[in-house]
Amino acid sequence: MIIIMRAGATQTQIQNVVSRIEKDGYKAHLSDGSERTIIGLIGDDRPIDRRTYEVMEGVEKSVKVLQPYKLVSRDLYETDTIVNVNKIKFGDSQIGIIAGPCSVEDRTQLLETAHAVKEAGAQALRGGAFKPRSSPYSFQGLGEKGLKILAEAREQTGLPIVTEVMTPEQIPLVTNYADVLQIGARNMQNYELLKSVGRTSHPILLKRGMMATLEELLMSAEYILSEGNNNVLICERGIRTFEKYTRNTTDINAVPVLKSLTHLPIIVDPSHGIGKWNFVTPVALAAIAAGADGLIIEVHPKPEEALSDGGQSLIPKRFAELVTKSRAIAAAIGRK
Amino acid sequence: MIIIMRAGATQTQIQNVVSRIEKDGYKAHLSDGSERTIIGLIGDDRPIDRRTYEVMEGVEKSVKVLQPYKLVSRDLYETDTIVNVNKIKFGDSQIGIIAGPCSVEDRTQLLETAHAVKEAGAQALRGGAFKPRSSPYSFQGLGEKGLKILAEAREQTGLPIVTEVMTPEQIPLVTNYADVLQIGARNMQNYELLKSVGRTSHPILLKRGMMATLEELLMSAEYILSEGNNNVLICERGIRTFEKYTRNTTDINAVPVLKSLTHLPIIVDPSHGIGKWNFVTPVALAAIAAGADGLIIEVHPKPEEALSDGGQSLIPKRFAELVTKSRAIAAAIGRK
Amino acid sequence: MIIIMRAGATQTQIQNVVSRIEKDGYKAHLSDGSERTIIGLIGDDRPIDRRTYEVMEGVEKSVKVLQPYKLVSRDLYETDTIVNVNKIKFGDSQIGIIAGPCSVEDRTQLLETAHAVKEAGAQALRGGAFKPRSSPYSFQGLGEKGLKILAEAREQTGLPIVTEVMTPEQIPLVTNYADVLQIGARNMQNYELLKSVGRTSHPILLKRGMMATLEELLMSAEYILSEGNNNVLICERGIRTFEKYTRNTTDINAVPVLKSLTHLPIIVDPSHGIGKWNFVTPVALAAIAAGADGLIIEVHPKPEEALSDGGQSLIPKRFAELVTKSRAIAAAIGRK
Amino acid sequence: MIIIMRAGATQTQIQNVVSRIEKDGYKAHLSDGSERTIIGLIGDDRPIDRRTYEVMEGVEKSVKVLQPYKLVSRDLYETDTIVNVNKIKFGDSQIGIIAGPCSVEDRTQLLETAHAVKEAGAQALRGGAFKPRSSPYSFQGLGEKGLKILAEAREQTGLPIVTEVMTPEQIPLVTNYADVLQIGARNMQNYELLKSVGRTSHPILLKRGMMATLEELLMSAEYILSEGNNNVLICERGIRTFEKYTRNTTDINAVPVLKSLTHLPIIVDPSHGIGKWNFVTPVALAAIAAGADGLIIEVHPKPEEALSDGGQSLIPKRFAELVTKSRAIAAAIGRK
Repeated sequence: MIIIMRAGATQTQIQNVVSRIEKDGYKAHLSDGSERTIIGLIGDDRPIDRRTYEVMEGVEKSVKVLQPYKLVSRDLYETDTIVNVNKIKFGDSQIGIIAGPCSVEDRTQLLETAHAVKEAGAQALRGGAFKPRSSPYSFQGLGEKGLKILAEAREQTGLPIVTEVMTPEQIPLVTNYADVLQIGARNMQNYELLKSVGRTSHPILLKRGMMATLEELLMSAEYILSEGNNNVLICERGIRTFEKYTRNTTDINAVPVLKSLTHLPIIVDPSHGIGKWNFVTPVALAAIAAGADGLIIEVHPKPEEALSDGGQSLIPKRFAELVTKSRAIAAAIGRK
Repeated sequence: MIIIMRAGATQTQIQNVVSRIEKDGYKAHLSDGSERTIIGLIGDDRPIDRRTYEVMEGVEKSVKVLQPYKLVSRDLYETDTIVNVNKIKFGDSQIGIIAGPCSVEDRTQLLETAHAVKEAGAQALRGGAFKPRSSPYSFQGLGEKGLKILAEAREQTGLPIVTEVMTPEQIPLVTNYADVLQIGARNMQNYELLKSVGRTSHPILLKRGMMATLEELLMSAEYILSEGNNNVLICERGIRTFEKYTRNTTDINAVPVLKSLTHLPIIVDPSHGIGKWNFVTPVALAAIAAGADGLIIEVHPKPEEALSDGGQSLIPKRFAELVTKSRAIAAAIGRK
Repeated sequence: MIIIMRAGATQTQIQNVVSRIEKDGYKAHLSDGSERTIIGLIGDDRPIDRRTYEVMEGVEKSVKVLQPYKLVSRDLYETDTIVNVNKIKFGDSQIGIIAGPCSVEDRTQLLETAHAVKEAGAQALRGGAFKPRSSPYSFQGLGEKGLKILAEAREQTGLPIVTEVMTPEQIPLVTNYADVLQIGARNMQNYELLKSVGRTSHPILLKRGMMATLEELLMSAEYILSEGNNNVLICERGIRTFEKYTRNTTDINAVPVLKSLTHLPIIVDPSHGIGKWNFVTPVALAAIAAGADGLIIEVHPKPEEALSDGGQSLIPKRFAELVTKSRAIAAAIGRK
Repeated sequence: MIIIMRAGATQTQIQNVVSRIEKDGYKAHLSDGSERTIIGLIGDDRPIDRRTYEVMEGVEKSVKVLQPYKLVSRDLYETDTIVNVNKIKFGDSQIGIIAGPCSVEDRTQLLETAHAVKEAGAQALRGGAFKPRSSPYSFQGLGEKGLKILAEAREQTGLPIVTEVMTPEQIPLVTNYADVLQIGARNMQNYELLKSVGRTSHPILLKRGMMATLEELLMSAEYILSEGNNNVLICERGIRTFEKYTRNTTDINAVPVLKSLTHLPIIVDPSHGIGKWNFVTPVALAAIAAGADGLIIEVHPKPEEALSDGGQSLIPKRFAELVTKSRAIAAAIGRK
């Protein structure tokens, strides 16, 4: 069971609930969020009468949740969570589109791409400064230098910045520059990192592990929310299957299923999901038709020279076409 | 290399080509179709000058194809193949929708469903009379009795019939009643069955094996075309992945990829693809947005009483909504 | 529930049981085997008192089985089934080793291999005359000519023959020549074929589908036993996984798990299981250590010239080493 | 290409090599290990004459390696690396056996298990103090308190300690108590963690990610070696497949394949590999027969009360039987 305290509940009120839980023979798990405190009652909660806790001072409500994930579940919050990133409202009626290169490679490349994607209709800029690479000998990103270039792009274009953070120690640095912190697929079950970004108030873009189930994905989001940060965008980016022709298999089923299981916004990354630029647009349109709240698209001015993921990057002109077609599909299902 | 003979080429002309192939040190593979003969030249064809064969009498053209599949490849036929099923033209600008129950259970159930799906906008009726079941103790279908009920439904509604054939011996019986022969996912690599339906002139709906790659799927289609039957609808119906919440994972990537690799029409089965009725519509819309030429949807008047696959069947009213929404998406991408 | 009739039960006794089942509101499923009849009671059998049936004349015993597979289950028969193939007793304390080429290519190749594997210690000879190939243009086997060569090899060496059958129609031909009928991985769910071999009295070597679960494998064996043929060897031959370095992944877990779930003998095919000859021996030894009752190994005198699967075939000399090492492992676990 | 400097090479010698690399138009990647420096030459190294570098002062040798992993490759070091953990020599002729509970739960449980596994023949003690759990509400381990209990167990039994480290920050604490640092499956691609343990001189037990390929596993080991720590034990612990009856699928193929690709010792974890205690022993025996250098086995005095993984834990008595049988298999293949 989860006991949600009112915003502004006092330490005494919280302590009283904890004491009551322990007196009843359970353990209490405190999530001390910036907005309010949530108390998990750990143990077999079937015999408990919820009203026992709901009448206590400072308590907003309590919920019994069958799924192993609690705070991310629609059973707890029925209405869609809106995650605000500057003026974009992910989870609202408009489809939010994030675009940019896989990696920040140099100032020219990034600024050129930033202006191009803005003009084409993107609402946020992506670009990696810290890159998780399977080889220690591959390009590992520009680090802080890359973050500074991203900040300059934001200044010039007004686009908010989405960039990856790989370790708890990088968080103070990255939050200085970025608007949204991305957790990459390989770190989806890096629990210490999840807890650490859960203690920030930045929006988090959480990518599905390449072989994770939807329950595992939601459990990882639960780690973030359990630390008090509710601003999580869940990102489907393709799973590993036996198909060799495509890099990954976009799990389109995940879109309506996640929308039914969680109140958090769902973003789709068709660039990683299929891995070949010439198929990115049809998959992006499919994602919107299936109900996705946003897209994240790799765009590069010269894909053939990209240091990473060139083969799945659109040139700005084709990205502009994708945006136009996306609007038509969005309109067909009554969204913007 | 593939040598395509003209329609009406004589036996002597064909024999001359075969003799030349053997004289050149290769083996010849003859596909004696109802319309024309195709001769495969088996072996390392790199040193061959194609004109050697193209100047021979009765030869229409020859093609070197890099992929292991030849006749199904777009390298051989660039333009979309249109498969005619009564008045539906699969592969043309209109999206064809096939609907009906998993199994023919009895006359009342089938006729009721047939009228309902017709009214809702379906253009063909599906229903299984022979059912491949993982248990020998499960309902195995009504057999010929089921086929007769399907024929009656066609008479009443005018809808062409799509139904499964499981063995070469069933083919004469099933072709008597059905308009389209379905090869089920479990039989995708039942090569004798593929060859046998390849010798009919009926359109074939070939379902992807639940763990087959796209290349394996196209190789299975190649078996059918290599026997002379080009009327093949390729059907994506979901693949097995680690995701437990859904029955299968609809491979939405398969739609644009197959459209680029083959000239054959691509159909999507979102009912098996996700396996829960409440998510069928978003996946169907995604399939159309991604470029599918048709849908096959399970519809049952009383899903809770269905002998098989009730959980993924739509009631007619919801199917009608699916058709309406599908039209909106089709219009948004310039199709009907 | 399954009701097992005594050997020699009369038609009247059987009919009485069926009538009683129907009177009790269930359906009866008759499996009329060559040795005895088994009657499946289909429906929710929880309220039934087993003794009602066990006291009837001609009934040996009745069993309630929780798993979807019944006749193959250890719940039904606790003791190991011994499948006799000439003098080999698969399922007994000795490890049975089957060896030979993937395909029968010509008389010389097969006879040479047959003598070599016999000398090295093999107890049965494998070789395909009908080959399921993913391409219609690949070598499809020598057919009856291949069967005749196999029969000649048996005459010369005394080794029983294991060879694949692909369709119900081939069965009369293949049973004329072969001692064991192999069902290939791609046909594991070809239910008509399973039923047809279930009506023969030949031992069947049933290969696991390359992406089948153990339950699906046992359900396919159930199809064979439900038709009256209990002589089934279950063969683990590797499953498809994401690993690219090996052709398949030998599921070593399957060995002890299958031994616990079924009374049928378990054979392992390390040649397909790993797909590279230089790793076949360690995997074969692992299979024996894990409790397998037999091995099936690809051996070819000139692997580099093989028409199929050359890369995973041992030369006879290395196969002889495998046999020697296998004996050492078998001895270490108290087997022969 | 990799240029390996002699132990004791001077900074000037190293700098000279780097300068030469850059002059030749390549990038240099320096791995400054505690024992010696390795310099990676990044770029297309085909035109380079190796002798150019090998004649330079301070250079031991240079190697061109085709695989993406270099330092872990057998192409670089042909002979088996021996990893010393107290008196155990992993990679030598003796099979090393590590045993203990999944988690350190309390002092009594751990000390009891430690004495029992020692008596049964284990050479090292495992036990988790920091536990990566998919739910934030599950038991997360005792932390430093658990480490202290482990240290006490070592003092009493003399067994070296294997325990998991989850973040770079925990390393100083854990290295204070542990003899071997374990990297868990979920952290196999946590590159910052890999680099951090690569900077210690402790032996590392690197678990394969549950859906990682062998190349990805070796690339992760490469991260550790590239920082100068060569004491890495590679651990196969089962991969995720479609099989539902077992928790994972032990990839037995991985044992001989890894032994051929890398010089590092290979350990198998059959407890996670199959996930049910009653099948752990056959899989352990299979691992040894396939050539594994060691085992890691979960043992718990009262599995039914374990806070995690009870279902796959052996009681000490059965573990003792496993050790006895393991010795018989080891002897059969000429090991100890």
